[in-house]
Amino acid sequence: MALIVMKFGGSSVGTPERMQRVANRILERQQEGNRIVVVVSAMGDTTDDLIDQSKLLNPNPPAREMDMLLTTGEQISIALLSMTIHALGGKAVSYTGWQAGIVTEPVHGKAKIADIKPGRIFAALDDGNAVIVAGFQGMTEAGDITTLGRGGSDTTAVALAAAVNADLCEIYTDVDGVYSTDPRVVKNARKLDEISYDEMLELAHLGAAVLHPRAVEYAKLSNVRLVVRSSFTNNEGTTVKEEAVMEQGIAVRGIAFDKNVSRISILGVEDVPGVLAQVFGALAKHGIDVDIIVQSGTQGGKADFSFTVSGGDEEAAIRVIEGIRSELPYRETTSETGLVKVSIVGAGMVSNPGVAATMFDAISSLGVSIKMVSTSEIKCSCVIAAEPLNDVVRSLHTAFGLDTADQVFVGGPQERR
Amino acid sequence: MALIVMKFGGSSVGTPERMQRVANRILERQQEGNRIVVVVSAMGDTTDDLIDQSKLLNPNPPAREMDMLLTTGEQISIALLSMTIHALGGKAVSYTGWQAGIVTEPVHGKAKIADIKPGRIFAALDDGNAVIVAGFQGMTEAGDITTLGRGGSDTTAVALAAAVNADLCEIYTDVDGVYSTDPRVVKNARKLDEISYDEMLELAHLGAAVLHPRAVEYAKLSNVRLVVRSSFTNNEGTTVKEEAVMEQGIAVRGIAFDKNVSRISILGVEDVPGVLAQVFGALAKHGIDVDIIVQSGTQGGKADFSFTVSGGDEEAAIRVIEGIRSELPYRETTSETGLVKVSIVGAGMVSNPGVAATMFDAISSLGVSIKMVSTSEIKCSCVIAAEPLNDVVRSLHTAFGLDTADQVFVGGPQERR
Repeated sequence: MALIVMKFGGSSVGTPERMQRVANRILERQQEGNRIVVVVSAMGDTTDDLIDQSKLLNPNPPAREMDMLLTTGEQISIALLSMTIHALGGKAVSYTGWQAGIVTEPVHGKAKIADIKPGRIFAALDDGNAVIVAGFQGMTEAGDITTLGRGGSDTTAVALAAAVNADLCEIYTDVDGVYSTDPRVVKNARKLDEISYDEMLELAHLGAAVLHPRAVEYAKLSNVRLVVRSSFTNNEGTTVKEEAVMEQGIAVRGIAFDKNVSRISILGVEDVPGVLAQVFGALAKHGIDVDIIVQSGTQGGKADFSFTVSGGDEEAAIRVIEGIRSELPYRETTSETGLVKVSIVGAGMVSNPGVAATMFDAISSLGVSIKMVSTSEIKCSCVIAAEPLNDVVRSLHTAFGLDTADQVFVGGPQERR
Repeated sequence: MALIVMKFGGSSVGTPERMQRVANRILERQQEGNRIVVVVSAMGDTTDDLIDQSKLLNPNPPAREMDMLLTTGEQISIALLSMTIHALGGKAVSYTGWQAGIVTEPVHGKAKIADIKPGRIFAALDDGNAVIVAGFQGMTEAGDITTLGRGGSDTTAVALAAAVNADLCEIYTDVDGVYSTDPRVVKNARKLDEISYDEMLELAHLGAAVLHPRAVEYAKLSNVRLVVRSSFTNNEGTTVKEEAVMEQGIAVRGIAFDKNVSRISILGVEDVPGVLAQVFGALAKHGIDVDIIVQSGTQGGKADFSFTVSGGDEEAAIRVIEGIRSELPYRETTSETGLVKVSIVGAGMVSNPGVAATMFDAISSLGVSIKMVSTSEIKCSCVIAAEPLNDVVRSLHTAFGLDTADQVFVGGPQERR
């Protein structure tokens, strides 16, 4: 008898019909002889509607009260899902985050889970219930309601799976797994049977709509076996685990890309210790996320370096840099917008030294020049002009042997979100 | 420095403008130097909307899950009200029922409050907060969320007022107090400055839209001083307390009436001990509420008795009585529908023996015949034909000296609900 945590996102329970489909799914899994803990998000647009209501009354509400407000969304979901299971003749009991024993740090809006006390969950399982837990929420030791912030419900599912020592944590979503790249761009994109935690993290921009990186980190840390699968089909899905099998002769698991990237360069910077910390510390303090950072060699005590930010952040970033010019003299800044980042990801890259060269070759054979390069053990990223991104991705997909001729798309582009 | 509990109903916080008005009201009361605990209901139609959602998924949902669902309505209200107070520069903190220490019996849908542990409330008050508590809800000792059922938020307010030993419990509503009768019927209806708990209970049908009888009972039991007042004006309102002053020469506080009453008579019943218990026990078991019960004298070992039920219940009531005919032989049943009950209520009646006679006289002088009479120490009720009810009420209102020539109606009929 396996213990399975099943997580359903907001779109999976967004209508009465979908709620019933989810309830049936839970009962099927239970009838197969499994003990079931379910984590569910707020239905459809509930959270956005609550945020809109709050903005009318306070554009900058206290985080504690925002948590009090938003956690009602998941509470509605768990109550309705439990009722639906009862309507189908099943046995279920719903728990808010605090009732499920989810204790968080005393932080509002983005608390981390500090501890889970699963006593009530086990008691309810022993009584034959499907246990329905509200995602995205917990309680501080002092008894205040908190939310977990980005990726919240995925993280709740993984953390609960770790706390109850589940055999499996199934993330149900509206696509049927993780793909080798975005099927909207490459028709022959391949649904992956397996992927490692690290690869999943590197594919974050490809996979974030499916599974939040924070939950993947948590799963890696606790060695929770994850399966990403569709709530609309019975297809197998993608398993995320420590060691994922690679097919013979394939070094790359998937191709990710990130549109709307801006590159900023700081030229002629005095090359003293702490320069990078100063620049990127100042940017972080202003909430500007920096992605790739590249420093070229130093000449005459002066260095040039470049980094990328999300498109739209470049002006703010340059203002921040100008603001620290007195402490950090430099010659000039330049910036370029409307770029894209394309990355190949795969645990096999480390043992295949020709992979980066194959990538550069595929890109340059399309007449595209590479503006920045950054590599890690399992990833190689290039920043290029936005056009012709799709051709580049398709060309890389073919070059690394990822195409599949007879792929059937279930939950294809129109259902992706 | 007084400690005041302020309770606002769902219509008082039903729009952003109303929410802001309530927040201002709270801050005014606080700036007068009072410590403030607020109880608030779910906004507008929230509860009905949640019930509608649940019906789509389970027409007969488990009471535990229904409580889980419905309590989100008040949780949304407290969060938004707290945010609104912050937006106006005030300090507030919101608590769900369980956070406020409201412990109930382990019953769902209609739990009674078993205990209140106000430690967190006092701590938050000491920090200078307005403390915003969700009405209508609590938690069992085992940690399940419960609702208090009918009159829930009024009861929460009164129970909290008792638990924190408040100087005053203000019930804010959309009328500006309790009236001597329905101002839609009698233009000269008088807003009462004071009324006793018992009178308020007897006027229940007049006052239930303003203040739930269960909360009045609780207030009487705990000797909590209540004030019913408008959330839209600064008028004084009506104070409900143990001993309410009567004006010189006035024996009656108010006139209540109940439309759509049916009378059922059972004639020629074997007059043995336990007859009444048998009949009314059977009716109660079938969920039929009986109001007035009148037994006339016994003749030849046979008795006749009559009782009233709400219009629409008469056929079910007769079926119940026919169902016990084998145990309780009787000659026949008769019934009459479309009747009304009109009642005069006042603590002064007990010392004014002519009051009932004045009532009968006023009714019969309109050519109306009285079908049933029932009296208590502070009430006298007559069942009459539905027409001309309004004339009867007006005539009684004048006969007992309740008319006021220059009454100004604020929150008059169109706003009553």
